[in-house]
Amino acid sequence: MKLLSIPNIQSEQDKMRRAKISIIGAGNVGATCAHWCAAAELGDIVLLDIPQTEDMPAGKALDLMQASPIMGFDSNIVGTTSYDDTADSDVVVVTAGIPRKPGMSRDDLLGTNAKIITSVAGQIKESSPNAVVIVVSNPLDAMVQQMWKVTGFDSARVCGQAGVLDTARYRAFLAMELGVSVEDISALLMGGHGDTMVPMPSCTSVGGIPVTQLIEEKRLEEIVDRTRKGGAEIVSLLKTGSAYYAPAAACAQMAEAVVKDKKRVIPVAALCDSEYSVGGYYVGVPVVMGSGGVEKIIELQLTEKETAAFQHSVSAVKDLVAAMDQLLSS
Amino acid sequence: MKLLSIPNIQSEQDKMRRAKISIIGAGNVGATCAHWCAAAELGDIVLLDIPQTEDMPAGKALDLMQASPIMGFDSNIVGTTSYDDTADSDVVVVTAGIPRKPGMSRDDLLGTNAKIITSVAGQIKESSPNAVVIVVSNPLDAMVQQMWKVTGFDSARVCGQAGVLDTARYRAFLAMELGVSVEDISALLMGGHGDTMVPMPSCTSVGGIPVTQLIEEKRLEEIVDRTRKGGAEIVSLLKTGSAYYAPAAACAQMAEAVVKDKKRVIPVAALCDSEYSVGGYYVGVPVVMGSGGVEKIIELQLTEKETAAFQHSVSAVKDLVAAMDQLLSS
Amino acid sequence: MKLLSIPNIQSEQDKMRRAKISIIGAGNVGATCAHWCAAAELGDIVLLDIPQTEDMPAGKALDLMQASPIMGFDSNIVGTTSYDDTADSDVVVVTAGIPRKPGMSRDDLLGTNAKIITSVAGQIKESSPNAVVIVVSNPLDAMVQQMWKVTGFDSARVCGQAGVLDTARYRAFLAMELGVSVEDISALLMGGHGDTMVPMPSCTSVGGIPVTQLIEEKRLEEIVDRTRKGGAEIVSLLKTGSAYYAPAAACAQMAEAVVKDKKRVIPVAALCDSEYSVGGYYVGVPVVMGSGGVEKIIELQLTEKETAAFQHSVSAVKDLVAAMDQLLSS
Amino acid sequence: MKLLSIPNIQSEQDKMRRAKISIIGAGNVGATCAHWCAAAELGDIVLLDIPQTEDMPAGKALDLMQASPIMGFDSNIVGTTSYDDTADSDVVVVTAGIPRKPGMSRDDLLGTNAKIITSVAGQIKESSPNAVVIVVSNPLDAMVQQMWKVTGFDSARVCGQAGVLDTARYRAFLAMELGVSVEDISALLMGGHGDTMVPMPSCTSVGGIPVTQLIEEKRLEEIVDRTRKGGAEIVSLLKTGSAYYAPAAACAQMAEAVVKDKKRVIPVAALCDSEYSVGGYYVGVPVVMGSGGVEKIIELQLTEKETAAFQHSVSAVKDLVAAMDQLLSS
Repeated sequence: MKLLSIPNIQSEQDKMRRAKISIIGAGNVGATCAHWCAAAELGDIVLLDIPQTEDMPAGKALDLMQASPIMGFDSNIVGTTSYDDTADSDVVVVTAGIPRKPGMSRDDLLGTNAKIITSVAGQIKESSPNAVVIVVSNPLDAMVQQMWKVTGFDSARVCGQAGVLDTARYRAFLAMELGVSVEDISALLMGGHGDTMVPMPSCTSVGGIPVTQLIEEKRLEEIVDRTRKGGAEIVSLLKTGSAYYAPAAACAQMAEAVVKDKKRVIPVAALCDSEYSVGGYYVGVPVVMGSGGVEKIIELQLTEKETAAFQHSVSAVKDLVAAMDQLLSS
Repeated sequence: MKLLSIPNIQSEQDKMRRAKISIIGAGNVGATCAHWCAAAELGDIVLLDIPQTEDMPAGKALDLMQASPIMGFDSNIVGTTSYDDTADSDVVVVTAGIPRKPGMSRDDLLGTNAKIITSVAGQIKESSPNAVVIVVSNPLDAMVQQMWKVTGFDSARVCGQAGVLDTARYRAFLAMELGVSVEDISALLMGGHGDTMVPMPSCTSVGGIPVTQLIEEKRLEEIVDRTRKGGAEIVSLLKTGSAYYAPAAACAQMAEAVVKDKKRVIPVAALCDSEYSVGGYYVGVPVVMGSGGVEKIIELQLTEKETAAFQHSVSAVKDLVAAMDQLLSS
Repeated sequence: MKLLSIPNIQSEQDKMRRAKISIIGAGNVGATCAHWCAAAELGDIVLLDIPQTEDMPAGKALDLMQASPIMGFDSNIVGTTSYDDTADSDVVVVTAGIPRKPGMSRDDLLGTNAKIITSVAGQIKESSPNAVVIVVSNPLDAMVQQMWKVTGFDSARVCGQAGVLDTARYRAFLAMELGVSVEDISALLMGGHGDTMVPMPSCTSVGGIPVTQLIEEKRLEEIVDRTRKGGAEIVSLLKTGSAYYAPAAACAQMAEAVVKDKKRVIPVAALCDSEYSVGGYYVGVPVVMGSGGVEKIIELQLTEKETAAFQHSVSAVKDLVAAMDQLLSS
Repeated sequence: MKLLSIPNIQSEQDKMRRAKISIIGAGNVGATCAHWCAAAELGDIVLLDIPQTEDMPAGKALDLMQASPIMGFDSNIVGTTSYDDTADSDVVVVTAGIPRKPGMSRDDLLGTNAKIITSVAGQIKESSPNAVVIVVSNPLDAMVQQMWKVTGFDSARVCGQAGVLDTARYRAFLAMELGVSVEDISALLMGGHGDTMVPMPSCTSVGGIPVTQLIEEKRLEEIVDRTRKGGAEIVSLLKTGSAYYAPAAACAQMAEAVVKDKKRVIPVAALCDSEYSVGGYYVGVPVVMGSGGVEKIIELQLTEKETAAFQHSVSAVKDLVAAMDQLLSS
């Protein structure tokens, strides 16, 4: 019997290669991000965690790959503890960092994660010098600033995920409130993640209709407030651990915008210099996201109230970055 | 200003209601099953766990729901600890049960999970008397038998998931071996889950081509053997915990077959009486799965070797059920 | 050899039946609507045309069904000339009617199509008394009025497609203008189809951002004007025939809203009585569309200019219906 | 007011560019292929026809693009009559050629289409020297041979679509026969398109189960025969025109295999030299299709009967090519 061997197919004309997406951190957010990306057939995926996790990333990757015949997606999904496997990624999603635990001070968290990001950034710089980097580690605004500083990448290729998640929560709450499809809710939230989030009622609509025609101001403020505390709400329900489905989905959407060059108009933590007179800090603003990363920062005309809230947010970011820099230099 | 209130939409003509899928157990398999089902917009989803988990199921459900505006699916996803919320489900996926822990005897696991399934079955019987029930709890073949016994449902509406997962692992390994798309691998595995799995080389093909023309017998046996130990391989990689992406995908595919009435030809743990001369036990066989559950058991002509392996599998199931019955009656 | 016969599967528990969507008229719009609906696995599809078309609908249906193994959708697609095959549809999409040909007066078209719709409506009333009916035949506003009158159905279950298409064209033009993803453009257009379309700049946004912050008023008016003449632009390009991809997609979206009970907020030609003080005519307004059809008409606060344009649109509809009634009674 | 201008986004880092798919011939097959490709977001699409069609391709492209906001896909779709717009395509699908009309001799069709393909091939050679070319024009086996000869491309990058369509029809008929999901039918048909098609019962399975266990030989032969005449069946139903949904889907699947580098195992008209001892002719064989085009020809062990049928098919192809060469040289 003449047996065939199909493997080792090589083709010199391999033009349309698949995208390569590396995810740093194989915890719930990282692994679920791999899930969303693989199911959407966005490309091949490398799931990386620290050496101490041993074969855990490989286990999650293999498990996910075993779902592919059922769900009909072709993605090579690899779990690893070595950055070599991430070489020449098109997109790197950074979920690394420890969560805040009871009894831990804000500075403990900030200092620890800043060191983790510094290390991760150095590795990415070496292994994937042309990647678009999407940071989701907390505290987000400082971590993405540090990622940019250490990699030295063009600022267009380093950005942070916060606004897509906040906006998704807001849209979900609005859809529940009105009893309508989530597909028809558009919204935009600016500024920092969480407490200093800037609500933009003029940028919220339902099937195109300004939300202010559908929900009373007072009720809308309650929904904004629930959104602001959206992460904490999940933490208080789960008791152990924090949200991962929606944060991972948000990262996957940003990765898709890059690998499919979709030119999405979404809120992203981007380096703003002259924009909004921020002066060189990462803060949540609407951008056009495509294969080049943050291809354009959109400067909105803000009302006085919105400007005040935005500047408050920027101040908080500056303080956070200053605190981080001090911790890193001490 | 005349404010609108869209909520409380009621329509007497509500004909095309969404399917209702309840998932019992909000651990990794259950929650990931909710993820696959929601993302495919299969219907509304209820994620249930025991009262001691408090708000955990609600937390996972809310997190998943907050991913829906990003991913564009409309599903109401509810987390709960009360079976009232599962009332009149079309499909119930049962992932409940404890995992086997170090130092635990096989009988400890069997006895504990049999009691859990007995309780769950009683609740399903009350709350969703017309549902199709898909059991994935371990040890699978005994648990599904107990589910059928306690609910008293028509056997077509009680089945177990094992074969879709085993087959998916096998297909994934074959695709890796040959370097080809998972979409083009067809396969069928019969019998029990794990050690007594019955390989069917004559039912394995690649783009229609019998696998025996592409892979040598010895190598194929190695791949079958890896499949047989597929669950253990993941456990050994993860260290803590076991597989959930692929098991959850397998359950979701079976749920889809029901809610979309797809008439899928897949291996399912179904009650075989005269079929294959089994005599009233649940064992993995190819079936046609549609809105009625297991609508048809397909009786293949087995070779002598396959028959022997299958009967070995059936014996193991009978022993397992006998052991369970003894534990439950003691 | 003991041969198996899988067919004739019957299940008494068949609870989650597939939706049944009938499409009246198997021309380009009808057949392409079948294409969109089948590819999205919305349900089983019946494609009907007049007896003189003989086997043409069956040919298109069979061709489409032969695409299903490639694209992986399970839909029974049937082509027919008999309304018996459409019995008990959940949704009926009506594309029937002749197109306007050179030398044909407006009244010729109106009279001919009104008679066609009268006949179709009578058949639907008999064969699918509980269906939601979506009319896309031209002139739209009169045809849907006649459909409602003849069927005697609850007005929630009879509606017309015009606004989803107009809005889609507008969104496509805006995405082209700005070089951004179509996914991020929200818009709403009210009133009649075509010349009397009511632009609503306040209901147009890009990633939530009011379009007025992104495009100058003059340019926006040009885009609105191109939208208003969108159908004619396609006709002038095609030379023979008119648009069908986007009109069919619009109908499919409305059908999906019904069969998946999605509660979409979209512009639909709905019967407005007290709403907007219309007094019993079909006109394009934002609605919530779900399994009950038009489950809610949303009453916006219009500016004076918008109100004037809307009332101008309503007048045109009234004139059209009056002309139709006269032609039908003569 | 400071207006924003989002357009003219340029990014030097544009790494993950979208695939570019050009479709030659904007008739039903070509336009429907554009439909399938766009809806799957495979890349940007250029739909080209001859100058005499004037703005028709642009009209179809614009209509399809206007469906994109509804269906949520981002594809630039351009209609044109100039090959300049197709420059540097990754994939070119060739549907050009006239259909056989009543009274037309086989040689009339062959000669006319050979000249058309010769012209198209010259244009592709100039404008897209690195493309993978998929030919679907009839008579297929001769047209793809001529395409390869004129372009001078590596044979891996020139192939013909016939087997995917034939197999899809066969799978659809088998699914109808058994009343099961099309997703679970695997099959392979070899040789030429139509009369000389080689049935391979040993390469046909249902959920992995050999079809010979499910359908009697006689009935299976009837189904094969219906498949063999599948194109004619559609023609006889439609009266005017021939099949386009399934042929277009087949081309789209092959284009997807290239742009997503899927390594699909599918039957394709590929240049066989030593393979199957064909000696330098295009004939339908199973291949692995990826970004390099036909990356591997799979040589099956054929039975004597299959070999005879295959060689009969090859003879017919040789005669066809000889007839074409004579017509072209005269």
